[in-house]
Amino acid sequence: MSALTSTDTKPWPDLKLAAAPPRVAELIRRRWSPRTYANRDVAPEDLKLLFEAAHWSASCFNEQPWRFVVATKTDPANYAKVLACLVDKNQLWAKSAPVLMITAGKKTFSHNGSPDRYGLHDAGMALGYLMLQATELGLYANA
Amino acid sequence: MSALTSTDTKPWPDLKLAAAPPRVAELIRRRWSPRTYANRDVAPEDLKLLFEAAHWSASCFNEQPWRFVVATKTDPANYAKVLACLVDKNQLWAKSAPVLMITAGKKTFSHNGSPDRYGLHDAGMALGYLMLQATELGLYANA
Repeated sequence: MSALTSTDTKPWPDLKLAAAPPRVAELIRRRWSPRTYANRDVAPEDLKLLFEAAHWSASCFNEQPWRFVVATKTDPANYAKVLACLVDKNQLWAKSAPVLMITAGKKTFSHNGSPDRYGLHDAGMALGYLMLQATELGLYANA
Repeated sequence: MSALTSTDTKPWPDLKLAAAPPRVAELIRRRWSPRTYANRDVAPEDLKLLFEAAHWSASCFNEQPWRFVVATKTDPANYAKVLACLVDKNQLWAKSAPVLMITAGKKTFSHNGSPDRYGLHDAGMALGYLMLQATELGLYANA
């Protein structure tokens, strides 16, 4: 579950840069998980780029088992449904985000229907890509 | 499971850049999964940076449930043990890599022992960071 928002400037000023060695990729050092979000929509083309980035993640048999349910505040009915999936204490902060997502991992391989024990693992990897791409675009996400 | 190697140049020339939109983060576009590796050790300080990057990934309750078993060709006995964990057809290509890893996800939370259903998911996200950090360092990994 991720909550995304846009920021005032792009790239985001380095107000909070991880205290990691400088040779750790800047994109990784810049990512963090805020709990307050600007009341501003994310452009649809930026949202698409998040899934494009996720799509380039690795997966077992290239199954790409990740599935994302997305709701924006511009669609209040579906936004409310996704928000309701969160436990109460997470709803408190997540409700300020303009975009909510549910991540899921497919449990079987498409080519033969056998169990894919790595579905959730690979979905997590793709979500990592998605969150780093959010950082790239000046957005922030909390999983 | 990842197999890592060093490359001749850093940054790696863009021989294989994903056909993704230019606004997808370059680090993501540059990553791919080779099946042949140079016969050259990875510097211990570079290996450490991979785990440093993984450490900055997000996790449920900040449990950081990822665990990595690492073996290098400079330690033939342990390298052979990790290689033997792979199915035969993967051993064929992985045995050329100077470093092998096993990724695992902790199944319980440390603070109360209750089940962590997201352990494998979060380990996958951390492995995604590790693999992107490999790309950053001019190394390549196959999961």
